[in-house]
Amino acid sequence: MPSRDTVEIGLNRFARRGYDLDEVSIVPSRRTRDVDDVSTAWQIDAFRFEIPLVTSPSDAVVSPATAIAVGQAGGLGVLNAEGLWTRYDDPLPVYRQLRDAAAEAPPPIALLQQVYAEPVKPDLISARIKEMRDAGVTTAVRVSPQHTELLAPSVLAAGVDLLVIQGTIVSAEHVTTQGSALNLKSFIADLDVPVIVGGAANYQTALHLMRTGAAGVIVGVGADSFSTGDAVMGVRVPLASAIADAAAARRDYLDETGGRYVHVIANGRIETSGAIARALACGADAVQVGEPLRAAKEAPAGGVWWDSVAAHPRLPRGGTSAPVPAAGSLEQVLLGPAETSDGRTNLFGALRRTMAKTGYRDLKEFQRVDLVIGGRPD
Amino acid sequence: MPSRDTVEIGLNRFARRGYDLDEVSIVPSRRTRDVDDVSTAWQIDAFRFEIPLVTSPSDAVVSPATAIAVGQAGGLGVLNAEGLWTRYDDPLPVYRQLRDAAAEAPPPIALLQQVYAEPVKPDLISARIKEMRDAGVTTAVRVSPQHTELLAPSVLAAGVDLLVIQGTIVSAEHVTTQGSALNLKSFIADLDVPVIVGGAANYQTALHLMRTGAAGVIVGVGADSFSTGDAVMGVRVPLASAIADAAAARRDYLDETGGRYVHVIANGRIETSGAIARALACGADAVQVGEPLRAAKEAPAGGVWWDSVAAHPRLPRGGTSAPVPAAGSLEQVLLGPAETSDGRTNLFGALRRTMAKTGYRDLKEFQRVDLVIGGRPD
Amino acid sequence: MPSRDTVEIGLNRFARRGYDLDEVSIVPSRRTRDVDDVSTAWQIDAFRFEIPLVTSPSDAVVSPATAIAVGQAGGLGVLNAEGLWTRYDDPLPVYRQLRDAAAEAPPPIALLQQVYAEPVKPDLISARIKEMRDAGVTTAVRVSPQHTELLAPSVLAAGVDLLVIQGTIVSAEHVTTQGSALNLKSFIADLDVPVIVGGAANYQTALHLMRTGAAGVIVGVGADSFSTGDAVMGVRVPLASAIADAAAARRDYLDETGGRYVHVIANGRIETSGAIARALACGADAVQVGEPLRAAKEAPAGGVWWDSVAAHPRLPRGGTSAPVPAAGSLEQVLLGPAETSDGRTNLFGALRRTMAKTGYRDLKEFQRVDLVIGGRPD
Amino acid sequence: MPSRDTVEIGLNRFARRGYDLDEVSIVPSRRTRDVDDVSTAWQIDAFRFEIPLVTSPSDAVVSPATAIAVGQAGGLGVLNAEGLWTRYDDPLPVYRQLRDAAAEAPPPIALLQQVYAEPVKPDLISARIKEMRDAGVTTAVRVSPQHTELLAPSVLAAGVDLLVIQGTIVSAEHVTTQGSALNLKSFIADLDVPVIVGGAANYQTALHLMRTGAAGVIVGVGADSFSTGDAVMGVRVPLASAIADAAAARRDYLDETGGRYVHVIANGRIETSGAIARALACGADAVQVGEPLRAAKEAPAGGVWWDSVAAHPRLPRGGTSAPVPAAGSLEQVLLGPAETSDGRTNLFGALRRTMAKTGYRDLKEFQRVDLVIGGRPD
Repeated sequence: MPSRDTVEIGLNRFARRGYDLDEVSIVPSRRTRDVDDVSTAWQIDAFRFEIPLVTSPSDAVVSPATAIAVGQAGGLGVLNAEGLWTRYDDPLPVYRQLRDAAAEAPPPIALLQQVYAEPVKPDLISARIKEMRDAGVTTAVRVSPQHTELLAPSVLAAGVDLLVIQGTIVSAEHVTTQGSALNLKSFIADLDVPVIVGGAANYQTALHLMRTGAAGVIVGVGADSFSTGDAVMGVRVPLASAIADAAAARRDYLDETGGRYVHVIANGRIETSGAIARALACGADAVQVGEPLRAAKEAPAGGVWWDSVAAHPRLPRGGTSAPVPAAGSLEQVLLGPAETSDGRTNLFGALRRTMAKTGYRDLKEFQRVDLVIGGRPD
Repeated sequence: MPSRDTVEIGLNRFARRGYDLDEVSIVPSRRTRDVDDVSTAWQIDAFRFEIPLVTSPSDAVVSPATAIAVGQAGGLGVLNAEGLWTRYDDPLPVYRQLRDAAAEAPPPIALLQQVYAEPVKPDLISARIKEMRDAGVTTAVRVSPQHTELLAPSVLAAGVDLLVIQGTIVSAEHVTTQGSALNLKSFIADLDVPVIVGGAANYQTALHLMRTGAAGVIVGVGADSFSTGDAVMGVRVPLASAIADAAAARRDYLDETGGRYVHVIANGRIETSGAIARALACGADAVQVGEPLRAAKEAPAGGVWWDSVAAHPRLPRGGTSAPVPAAGSLEQVLLGPAETSDGRTNLFGALRRTMAKTGYRDLKEFQRVDLVIGGRPD
Repeated sequence: MPSRDTVEIGLNRFARRGYDLDEVSIVPSRRTRDVDDVSTAWQIDAFRFEIPLVTSPSDAVVSPATAIAVGQAGGLGVLNAEGLWTRYDDPLPVYRQLRDAAAEAPPPIALLQQVYAEPVKPDLISARIKEMRDAGVTTAVRVSPQHTELLAPSVLAAGVDLLVIQGTIVSAEHVTTQGSALNLKSFIADLDVPVIVGGAANYQTALHLMRTGAAGVIVGVGADSFSTGDAVMGVRVPLASAIADAAAARRDYLDETGGRYVHVIANGRIETSGAIARALACGADAVQVGEPLRAAKEAPAGGVWWDSVAAHPRLPRGGTSAPVPAAGSLEQVLLGPAETSDGRTNLFGALRRTMAKTGYRDLKEFQRVDLVIGGRPD
Repeated sequence: MPSRDTVEIGLNRFARRGYDLDEVSIVPSRRTRDVDDVSTAWQIDAFRFEIPLVTSPSDAVVSPATAIAVGQAGGLGVLNAEGLWTRYDDPLPVYRQLRDAAAEAPPPIALLQQVYAEPVKPDLISARIKEMRDAGVTTAVRVSPQHTELLAPSVLAAGVDLLVIQGTIVSAEHVTTQGSALNLKSFIADLDVPVIVGGAANYQTALHLMRTGAAGVIVGVGADSFSTGDAVMGVRVPLASAIADAAAARRDYLDETGGRYVHVIANGRIETSGAIARALACGADAVQVGEPLRAAKEAPAGGVWWDSVAAHPRLPRGGTSAPVPAAGSLEQVLLGPAETSDGRTNLFGALRRTMAKTGYRDLKEFQRVDLVIGGRPD
């Protein structure tokens, strides 16, 4: 395996030096282009998207209706097959309960744990997928690695287009002494739909996940800036470095297979248009975005945010938040125009402009843009 | 091209290490001088200035009247040919509206977008230039690269002394599929007045802009500490490094042409006298200053601040601010005496003292002063 | 002695570069495991513990009753033989006084100095040890190096299982011109019970303490995030580096003795489950934890925190705090389940999950987990 | 000249890497000592002090009475010969005016400028020195380099023991086109009293000042954490590096002269006992301390703080502060006991303990203590 800079933290104990997205920035090079000459299109397997967006599978921002709206805006909405929409026939009262609790302060973790204690109903999975399919958009749902074998039949029977197998930390080699673990490689080989799998944190895990036959690998372990995986588990993945490492795995796997290109999808505190541009500049093919979508007026939780890991029954990580006011429609959040300058609306219009101002025509070229470390973030 | 320190952020993905102005400081060397023996004079083309000041073309601080006052104090005021003074016959009610909105909080971006939606009138450009010329100061106006060909005739016909072609990110090679782009080189070759052009962010862009025949190149992409170019576009230019790189381009271009010296004008969060000294110490010939001038009692927006990019119709960047109280006359802000110790008045008197305390007689020598990285900023 | 990275701070004056625990994080590697297949067991001398926990000997969290509860939860409680329980026949009124003083603000240092001015009574030491022994848990008390010779007889006569000789900074070679100093080596050689000694700050001190015959060495000089040893004494021990250095001393001593394994116990701002995981990942065998235990409803000071060094009569260091509300039982704080996501409950359940998600079965293996420097802490 | 680490900030433009005192810390080594076996004594020329303290010449903390108290506590008090006590026959009303202005907020700079506009009276200098001499302590006054030739006769005639020639930035080679500048070398050669001179910022200036015949050189340009020299002048001197560089100059000058030892006195944000220990550990022989003394109940400004440079008529730097409550007598601030743990009382008792805990008997040995870079400051 190739090696990155290492630091000797103490005698003979080494650590690799990693960089977060907000430590890295883009430097304009000598050419500029018209914004209208730039394409942000992205294609994975047979599915083409106008913007390189895969939503986080968070109930706070993705309902069947918002997944449809994301698809119509050019991205890929991912519904959580283990979320509120598949636990409750009518989740609206649950949303209301969470929003009421959040009116003045972030809702308590214990309340999240309670509403997610309700069992998942496989027939609701089918119904939700049907609703999205009927709208004509590309459909995707997320299952956890632990429940993949149990829930995948319902998901596939309902005709999903893409399956997302996602946990905080996923490996291609899960070891268990209790029965047999999910064998991702044989599971994926038997499927007719492409699979996106992750999160992975480094070159090796990314490469191993690529070898399972996945179409895309999610890189990063934390979904948002409310995550507490570092405080709770001591785990931290500086994302700029992880993306670059996964892009190296992509190149090596492309060579190893003589041409199979596995997409790298970055996930972790990608909450501004600037962060989107950085993630792609570091080598990602697409970005997984969640938290900023809560500012869309269509967001099902009315501006409140939580990630599903915050509802873990024994070891919740990540946080919940008080609501933010709506900043515009989902389309405006994604495509503009912006009426604020905080990088949280017109997320992909801004990307297009960054590409134009640095002279790149498409995303693949843009992965080679000049980067700088240092300087003060806004 | 010569190379600076690089960091491997991930496998085979490299970034250059950059330093911001506030990371760099000046170290007194063994000699000191009398303040009165020091000159801060600067000359570009046929124009000589007592202080190396080019104002930002921000409507918040530059009206025809303040441009004149800056000229009388020894610097160069730059009026925005695409700002309020050329959109409105009488911009005072617009200023009033913005100031009223700002009384308690920064005025909303949407209001800026609205007042800048009014079209530019070429005949107002002529009238404003005439007003400044009549006062006997060196005149300069700024046009954007996109509107240069449209507006330059009016600007030149009015007899401007210096033309500033400035956008956030400007290149010598703009590529378009829609008609033809501005060819800076042939455009400048045809002009009788010297041109200052920018912003550029690195050695290459600076060198290419020097080769267009410009008299000066602006280095830096952000005009003030309210900028959000990093959050919105993922673009960041650590200015100390960018200035030093552009100074290297200046040396190389001087050698390449056998003697053409193109001035480097630093732009970006130069908001204290300390930052002015640092920028010049890193290799700049002059500094573009905007935000601190709003504390002058002549400032047309009464202490409110915004940069023109904050008014962008689809992707505003940068911010607006509530007003600051006046700290004195424009002359006092520029030349002292200071009655506060925050580095925001007596901007160029402080520069003179720094030069004296480090033993330098003029700005060209001062570019060689000893620098240190590290230590705690005030 | 092996050498770590050094920095030349000035001409010919060098400093070693050290890393704090919160600068280092764990990176998941390619394998994952079931949580139930993981063991957090730790054994020192003849004593086995289900969790690698040694409590700080702080009166704020350790009474005889809580030491028993810690033992029942699988860890080692350490009572301070020079604390309130051995100075007062009934310390409850003293606790009440401190808690009353802390209701609105941290209690004043002067009050701590006053309550700790009461002399230690050897017979109370015996009584407290007896109470803990009677509950059937492994017993341990802490004495200071200065009072070891005076108090050890009472401690040993009472049948303690483990003796902890702990001061902020302890060396194997104390030099005095006033009588004779404690000779740790001969003192320990004469004992029948195993000794844990510290704190040590670097490779050399750790190695020398290992050579005294101690079973365990405490690494680190500060007990909590309220410490002020850096402001008061200019002393700082970046803990990740100190742990790794002490682990190197452990390896070298193991080789030197042909097999004596001395345990490294990390001490210093280990206040979240994430910090526990990091400390063990850097090479510690166990962690000394204090401050987080004050959130247990059994904590004797009702949520107030202080470390004994804060009561020093002439040079107090460290702070006191206003009380925190109870977060659950001591067992819940240590073993979960958690109802918050701040890393301060389910301290060792989280460790187990980190080990599972990085694929390690036991603590000794986990000391080899991949580390990363950089990235943003939560 | 020997060279330290350099950084290439941009192409061919280099800066040295400097470290501030709070980035450096002391690491206990393997030996410890009794506190009572440690000496903090310092001797310069014929004058011996029990603690290595030279006060800042700030009127906020040094009156003739407090200079006497400092001397009685074992240090050296320095009265400003160009301060309030030599401008006003009775400065008490001026102190009152400043304290009244400071009751709720820091007093305005303009008020300082006004009270310092009063001329210095040479006969008051004589009277103040006489008052201190009569108390039997070692006397020292500070003059600025600009006024040294004018004021020195009065100072010397009054029988001062040590003369301190101090400005923010002082060089051995002041260049002027207006008349002749002070020639420090010939001036000092003609004197009977030893001279302390500074501040110097690097190896070269320190070495040149040593060659003037001074007994001590002050290293550092900023007197306190309220300084704004960085914002105003762009000048910053990371003190740990500057001290180490000056200590190297001291060694080289010692060799060059075959035995003349010039003392290095550190000056700049030395405001806690920890900072005192760090400064000495980096190589200083003594420390110049000002701001913490305002917490002594004898402080003439009643807890308000300002440095004389804050009163500069055209370019004030540095700040003023609201008063702090008294923390005890001057003796308690210097020698303890402390009743708080913030490092701001028992300043030199803490030093003694740090020396004991790291095993050093005297200050000269302590300059070799192990240092570490990194870790979190308190």
